[in-house]
Amino acid sequence: MPRRALASDNWAGAHPDVLAALAEANAGHALAYGYDEWTERAVGAFRAHFGEGAEVFWAFNGTGANVTALQACVHRWGAVICPETAHIATDECGAPERFLGGGRVLAVRTPDGKLTPELVEPLLHGFGNEHHSQPEAVSITQSTELGTVYAPEEVRALAEQAHAYGLRLHVDGARLANAAASLGLPLRAFTTDAGVDVLSFGGTKNGAMLAEAVVFLDSALARDFRFIRKQSAQLASKSRFIAAQFLALLEGDLWLRLAERSNAMAIRLADGLRRLGVELRQEPQANELFAILPAEVIEPLQETCAFYVWDEARSEVRLVASWDTTSDDVDGFIAELGRLLRA
Amino acid sequence: MPRRALASDNWAGAHPDVLAALAEANAGHALAYGYDEWTERAVGAFRAHFGEGAEVFWAFNGTGANVTALQACVHRWGAVICPETAHIATDECGAPERFLGGGRVLAVRTPDGKLTPELVEPLLHGFGNEHHSQPEAVSITQSTELGTVYAPEEVRALAEQAHAYGLRLHVDGARLANAAASLGLPLRAFTTDAGVDVLSFGGTKNGAMLAEAVVFLDSALARDFRFIRKQSAQLASKSRFIAAQFLALLEGDLWLRLAERSNAMAIRLADGLRRLGVELRQEPQANELFAILPAEVIEPLQETCAFYVWDEARSEVRLVASWDTTSDDVDGFIAELGRLLRA
Amino acid sequence: MPRRALASDNWAGAHPDVLAALAEANAGHALAYGYDEWTERAVGAFRAHFGEGAEVFWAFNGTGANVTALQACVHRWGAVICPETAHIATDECGAPERFLGGGRVLAVRTPDGKLTPELVEPLLHGFGNEHHSQPEAVSITQSTELGTVYAPEEVRALAEQAHAYGLRLHVDGARLANAAASLGLPLRAFTTDAGVDVLSFGGTKNGAMLAEAVVFLDSALARDFRFIRKQSAQLASKSRFIAAQFLALLEGDLWLRLAERSNAMAIRLADGLRRLGVELRQEPQANELFAILPAEVIEPLQETCAFYVWDEARSEVRLVASWDTTSDDVDGFIAELGRLLRA
Amino acid sequence: MPRRALASDNWAGAHPDVLAALAEANAGHALAYGYDEWTERAVGAFRAHFGEGAEVFWAFNGTGANVTALQACVHRWGAVICPETAHIATDECGAPERFLGGGRVLAVRTPDGKLTPELVEPLLHGFGNEHHSQPEAVSITQSTELGTVYAPEEVRALAEQAHAYGLRLHVDGARLANAAASLGLPLRAFTTDAGVDVLSFGGTKNGAMLAEAVVFLDSALARDFRFIRKQSAQLASKSRFIAAQFLALLEGDLWLRLAERSNAMAIRLADGLRRLGVELRQEPQANELFAILPAEVIEPLQETCAFYVWDEARSEVRLVASWDTTSDDVDGFIAELGRLLRA
Repeated sequence: MPRRALASDNWAGAHPDVLAALAEANAGHALAYGYDEWTERAVGAFRAHFGEGAEVFWAFNGTGANVTALQACVHRWGAVICPETAHIATDECGAPERFLGGGRVLAVRTPDGKLTPELVEPLLHGFGNEHHSQPEAVSITQSTELGTVYAPEEVRALAEQAHAYGLRLHVDGARLANAAASLGLPLRAFTTDAGVDVLSFGGTKNGAMLAEAVVFLDSALARDFRFIRKQSAQLASKSRFIAAQFLALLEGDLWLRLAERSNAMAIRLADGLRRLGVELRQEPQANELFAILPAEVIEPLQETCAFYVWDEARSEVRLVASWDTTSDDVDGFIAELGRLLRA
Repeated sequence: MPRRALASDNWAGAHPDVLAALAEANAGHALAYGYDEWTERAVGAFRAHFGEGAEVFWAFNGTGANVTALQACVHRWGAVICPETAHIATDECGAPERFLGGGRVLAVRTPDGKLTPELVEPLLHGFGNEHHSQPEAVSITQSTELGTVYAPEEVRALAEQAHAYGLRLHVDGARLANAAASLGLPLRAFTTDAGVDVLSFGGTKNGAMLAEAVVFLDSALARDFRFIRKQSAQLASKSRFIAAQFLALLEGDLWLRLAERSNAMAIRLADGLRRLGVELRQEPQANELFAILPAEVIEPLQETCAFYVWDEARSEVRLVASWDTTSDDVDGFIAELGRLLRA
Repeated sequence: MPRRALASDNWAGAHPDVLAALAEANAGHALAYGYDEWTERAVGAFRAHFGEGAEVFWAFNGTGANVTALQACVHRWGAVICPETAHIATDECGAPERFLGGGRVLAVRTPDGKLTPELVEPLLHGFGNEHHSQPEAVSITQSTELGTVYAPEEVRALAEQAHAYGLRLHVDGARLANAAASLGLPLRAFTTDAGVDVLSFGGTKNGAMLAEAVVFLDSALARDFRFIRKQSAQLASKSRFIAAQFLALLEGDLWLRLAERSNAMAIRLADGLRRLGVELRQEPQANELFAILPAEVIEPLQETCAFYVWDEARSEVRLVASWDTTSDDVDGFIAELGRLLRA
Repeated sequence: MPRRALASDNWAGAHPDVLAALAEANAGHALAYGYDEWTERAVGAFRAHFGEGAEVFWAFNGTGANVTALQACVHRWGAVICPETAHIATDECGAPERFLGGGRVLAVRTPDGKLTPELVEPLLHGFGNEHHSQPEAVSITQSTELGTVYAPEEVRALAEQAHAYGLRLHVDGARLANAAASLGLPLRAFTTDAGVDVLSFGGTKNGAMLAEAVVFLDSALARDFRFIRKQSAQLASKSRFIAAQFLALLEGDLWLRLAERSNAMAIRLADGLRRLGVELRQEPQANELFAILPAEVIEPLQETCAFYVWDEARSEVRLVASWDTTSDDVDGFIAELGRLLRA
């Protein structure tokens, strides 16, 4: 491992408070399978953020949260519309198609990882035609895989369009905390209040160890979800240990502080890169940024800092700040890059 | 919650050493998705137990481990033969059928939760007949859901039969540690050395928090398993935190000590019950036992000790000792039962 | 091919009137995919038999009709209860599990191929328990794979039980015509009027070439069926040619005459066998019978008449009369068997 | 129905010789499920066209043929690359995703419905990466859904690229006969000899009633196909009646004469349209053409001739000639259109 890492927010460990919460929850026997009291408390914490009507279920990983949430929205003959950069379209090895049991993922090209009603519109046809997979959900990622963030009104516009056609709006919120930190808004402002039907909430990238949740904002969608989750092998027996991680994050403001930190480090990175004259794909709005580096500096730079090449042809790299990224990490990276650029 | 619990080994928490191992693994950044060094070390620990040829992969829960392991053995048109008490047959809400994508689970009635070649034989027909789901795997649970344990030669007989017909032998080892403790044998004596092809190894019931593994003893079966696991939503990003739990259990003898303790508590329970004249379904060989109680004492007894009624019609209850069950738990339960029986 | 065949009613060809109907439908262009006028007429013919509320769809084969019909009744986490002799349990290579996408087929041992409420009852539990596949349908075959026939009140009892628990009653009617002929009742007397929710109607064994239908008696179940059928690859483009076959059978009484003939030939067979002292498993009620023959006569007998050995261990053979089986076929078979028995 | 139809080649009936063949096959009893002698003969006819190594299986419809053929090529974690106009991408309601059980259909934009190695290349990446659906097959349609035809060397280039990367080449040959007629080449010249691994052969649009086949040119791929077909509900019981239709088409040159006729009628249509100054999307190479008509003539024209609007925004219509389309049909259509254009 190189000395620094800006490779992924899932390379980071867990925040100490998360470990402390695990230890605290490790007290005697507790009901399993989500019927424990930690789960009840953590569901309460979610409801404080998303509204009292929210129905909340744990999942093991982001793919698990996404594919179970979407099962609640889409028939086997349905389709999910998403950006072509979406995790469900590019990084889940066909898990959505598999768990949806025939449902299609329709990936739309976008300039910045964000869907708009204009981009969705052309796919909203063929309703009632049995030869055509029925559009039943729109899925967006917030913040997106390209480090951009939807404003509440952008989410609302997608929700209104979706609902007008009878579709559901799903949010892959693997980095929802980063979006909240970026927008400076409560979580519900751009989810519940913007018409989102169901979301995947990511704890793991936000400082947890292994904790994801499916949050139904339209509770009617949750009706059969216990069966979906169990049959999809996403039901934890010692569920309190997932709940405890969310308690550490969500009962106080840890979730927000950690997201703010990683966002701030991405901005610090962007500033440093700009000073070096490096081209950014776009201004970072959350904790990821994409930069064009001279091809010959990439490998030497990776000797002291781990990161991924995003698009080899364009010499574009992805840099991700995590909850534990420090100013020293950033400044050291910028200094090393500066040295290499000057060499 | 009543003061005591003999309800399930997944009601217990995690052993403190497991938490300590999590804290120790929580150091800086690490590669994700199973490419971290803790995973490498923990795979080594598994190989020390199961042989150097073993291929080892983490999963999130027992259902996840079972259904991914079986996917590596069974075509969509295949069938898995198991006892009708098997977890895959009764407690996974159709997850095996779902993940196998058409594969069938053929559940065989047994006296004691254990398959024998004689019980399997009648299902070994129809090979090559396209109208008939092809038998492709036998799945046994060790120790069984009824608290019984297969001797190594019993496993070997099933393996030999299976292999003679071209089937694979899978072991659901959610409580494999309890079987080892009961048999007084190394893990490989009744798995690798007995011809088992693949097993699910349960850490969660053995004192971990959330840690399961799929262990291929025939490494050829593992060829495509990375794709199977990922697509089945069983791939953890911060994989080191599953690995660390296995390190705590398997590098030393914690796994064995905890299993020995829970087995011993089950025997203590059995002794106490016998002294009270209670009928046991069979002598406990691992950490579970099944007893016939007078119907009228069950509810009062549940006020001080949580446990499940297994078969209401027969007034049969299941009692499970966990890694943290104490002599006081057992003695208190027996005393309370004695009081109720005398009342 | 031996000179005679009592092997299967799908070894028979098509009745000449069916071919004539195909020729008649072969006139110019017609709308495809079930929107043609022959389909409309044939649906009308079905409604005349099953009631005006019936919703009717073509399928290609019995498996296709069964698995699409059941999809309309059962969630992925559901289960179908059927006799262990059911076609869906023994002859469809896991197609039900596959098309149900995780749904289970729970096969119940029966004395005569017929379910009863008493046999179903033990499986009606675990409702609402997410670990347990939810019982959602009962499937019976009429006439059964063992040649027995449910009386209307037997069907009604199963329907009432099913509905009381929120399940649906499906009838695999691959030989529904034979049941009608046996009972001497209109089709609706033991289907629509007995509470059946959906049935698979077999034309192929009744004298057609390739014509099956899914008939929803509870039309609400049919809501999404066009999508289910299309996605299950059971939608014919030149649909008029399936419709035409049903017109030949159902607009007049051809369906009934052919079924009566095959039933009568089975009775003639039974009479002949009894005269020779051969043990029958049960009195034939439809067009199939099962007889115990001395092992040594089976192969010689197969030289002049094709038939299947049903259970080699018991020396039990299956004899099936078809729409085109003649008295000569039967008498010749009996004569030959008599000759062999005397030899 | 309007007096004429250029709507679809599945609106046409069956050629009289097909009906005659059905009548001829309707002789006594025959083995079912593909073991009959007509099937054997028809397989021989296929081998005469595609080579002695071909393995041939009947299917019920084009979707059924495609999704079973692709199952033999693609794992659940695999992907099929096809043009975005492909039937499997646009007209099968997610059946490919469903039958592939998680496999993805990657649809590529093309100018003319034809893939090229250049268009496929960008999708040939991520091999071995468990997060990425593995490219395992390329599927082309011949003749395409846009009425264009691949030359043998174009097919060969795609086959060579596919094989170099370990992929299979599948051809959706719903209109393979039209391609042969257009190219003036034997079927094997642009299939077997060009490196195609498996194809769906369409009889239905070529003058049959209901007859499709899956033809494996690489016979190793066919190994498990009997199970795939049966479990996918594509196995006909009275299989001789599908075989007989192929005998009518393929033993002589009926298949070719009918395809030549429909192609010729498309050319006659194109000539007529050009004389009227109508813009064609491209020169018809098979039996379909696409034309831009003034929006206001479309509805009046549909009063005398059925056809589909392909792209309402562009006022583009699709015209399909069938095996039974006559010069009068074409000339009448052109005359009527001329009248409307002049009005």
